[in-house]
Amino acid sequence: MGLALAACGNKKSNDYSTTGSATGTYQAVIKDGHYRTSKARGVAVQQNDNTYNQKSFENGLINIIAKKFFSTKSYIFQEGQYLDSGTVTNWLGRKTAKNPTGLNPAEGKKSDPNPLYVQQIEEQDYMQQSGGSLKLKGVVIGIGINSEYQYQKKTDGPYYTKNISNAEVQSEGKAAAAKVLKRLRAKPELKNVPIVIALYKQAGQDSLVGGTFFAYTKASGNKIGSWTDLDYKNVVLPKASSAASANSNSTGTSGAFSNFKSQIQNFFPNISGVTAQAQYKDGTLQGMHVTVTTQFYSQTEINSFTGYIVQAAKKYLPNGVSIDIKIQSDSGIQAVVYRDSGSSKWNSHVFGSY
Amino acid sequence: MGLALAACGNKKSNDYSTTGSATGTYQAVIKDGHYRTSKARGVAVQQNDNTYNQKSFENGLINIIAKKFFSTKSYIFQEGQYLDSGTVTNWLGRKTAKNPTGLNPAEGKKSDPNPLYVQQIEEQDYMQQSGGSLKLKGVVIGIGINSEYQYQKKTDGPYYTKNISNAEVQSEGKAAAAKVLKRLRAKPELKNVPIVIALYKQAGQDSLVGGTFFAYTKASGNKIGSWTDLDYKNVVLPKASSAASANSNSTGTSGAFSNFKSQIQNFFPNISGVTAQAQYKDGTLQGMHVTVTTQFYSQTEINSFTGYIVQAAKKYLPNGVSIDIKIQSDSGIQAVVYRDSGSSKWNSHVFGSY
Repeated sequence: MGLALAACGNKKSNDYSTTGSATGTYQAVIKDGHYRTSKARGVAVQQNDNTYNQKSFENGLINIIAKKFFSTKSYIFQEGQYLDSGTVTNWLGRKTAKNPTGLNPAEGKKSDPNPLYVQQIEEQDYMQQSGGSLKLKGVVIGIGINSEYQYQKKTDGPYYTKNISNAEVQSEGKAAAAKVLKRLRAKPELKNVPIVIALYKQAGQDSLVGGTFFAYTKASGNKIGSWTDLDYKNVVLPKASSAASANSNSTGTSGAFSNFKSQIQNFFPNISGVTAQAQYKDGTLQGMHVTVTTQFYSQTEINSFTGYIVQAAKKYLPNGVSIDIKIQSDSGIQAVVYRDSGSSKWNSHVFGSY
Repeated sequence: MGLALAACGNKKSNDYSTTGSATGTYQAVIKDGHYRTSKARGVAVQQNDNTYNQKSFENGLINIIAKKFFSTKSYIFQEGQYLDSGTVTNWLGRKTAKNPTGLNPAEGKKSDPNPLYVQQIEEQDYMQQSGGSLKLKGVVIGIGINSEYQYQKKTDGPYYTKNISNAEVQSEGKAAAAKVLKRLRAKPELKNVPIVIALYKQAGQDSLVGGTFFAYTKASGNKIGSWTDLDYKNVVLPKASSAASANSNSTGTSGAFSNFKSQIQNFFPNISGVTAQAQYKDGTLQGMHVTVTTQFYSQTEINSFTGYIVQAAKKYLPNGVSIDIKIQSDSGIQAVVYRDSGSSKWNSHVFGSY
């Protein structure tokens, strides 16, 4: 069975194969016919967090950080194999006598507790084939730092929120990174591989978009040298009318989105909901995820609406960045329209049923 | 506002524009900036029916029936404008003193009622531009006939199911078609246009796939001439082990699907669910809709699984027909993999989030 399954991916040796990959994505390791899952699998899911943060963190770690160092053509992606669930769970805890490796401070006064700063840690491994086997060539670690902390002064009491300043997010993230690097270097297998560490500021509990990576560093030894700052910003569209616009570029996108939205929200007699997440780097749009929600009365309405949205997207949405548009009703997704990064072609697919 | 919106589709005149269309799909009519919805909008949704039937009926009416007569290049699709909600609702009712146009028989004995045969009726209009305006060039009518009837002998009593034989489905469908044609010809606007009527056998209440069209006719006058039979069959995969296979072609597809399924269901340590709907015409596969459901623990798992599914689809799923694969978790769709009819290229898209 293992061999039969392995035969389906790209067979690399008797020992392992890889998933296929689309342009610009990594092949990933399949071992004995099964995906090589993370040793810390499930830890991220257990965490009580805004769900947008997890997707945003994992997407960013691979697309923004890892791809800077490990090209998708030469490296194979492997889920983290050196930090296991127990280790990561302990590191995410508070430092106590029982949990000496906790990266978060002891609770302190119940009425004014120290925040939990470190919210998530993820390891990704980048491999190359050498002889008949895979060799670890680099590790990427993401560390997510909270921007707010919610707590109760007494059990069943009301919740209070502490904001964590940008300066604290920076200093706590960098302090945690230094500890994590030292611990990784203590593992014989990780003594000499390049380790990239990236810091992510978590979005708050009520945000409709995840947080952003703000700094990264590549370490060859067991001390962190200098950090490179990143200037990413996520925006939810349409903007609340009270929100000041971030800069003129984002105002341009916001205007384009408004035109798109007004073109399609009145297509049917019932109003369609149109929202988007947009990401900017150094003030320049990187991509958008658009969601259109409406009530459809027939499959032909879905077909016609999808064709219309393609036209409206071509006409109004910004060029040159990846955009996807989910078209959904209360019974789930009905169609998708998307344009890949670097492409000028819009694709659309309507989900049918026999 | 109307003009601004109209500008987004393909402007045809001051009066109307059309949605765009992908290859092999119809452009549809936009009037004064809004989609021209069906005059019977919502009637289909109100009907108490297996939800697979509605999508299957509407998709089939346009793709299997209408495209035989009205090419997507020369004709523009318009939602039905000649049968309104009240009319269709009356026609779908039982024939009584109060509802003389009901196409279904009076109830008869409560303990042994006459079935409701006619379950749904849909009108589609096919248009061509002539001068500055649109002219109706043909009407397609679909009539859905039940293959089973559920009833109660007394209020709050148990439900009984009557099977409706194929012979009855045929004769009831053809009788209803003759009445519908006569009523349409009585409308001055429909006196001289070609009217195509297609008959659909509804799937039963518990089916995981919709019904199929079994006959159609094109009428120029107000009497129906001969019917053309259609041999369509929908199958749910994997087949229950007790189900006898329909024919050798469907056994081939079923085997290919089994291989595909076993390649991917053990990719993760947790089992992934893999099901499909397949459609056959004259024993030959026409297309498949596949759904893969699993629990993902990270975005990187979704990326890797999607790449792997593309490989498995290329290797195992049948060539030359349209196939789509929804990849979903309990929080909804995560990615889509599809190949259009007549294409050999598989497309994939992973839904990200910022």
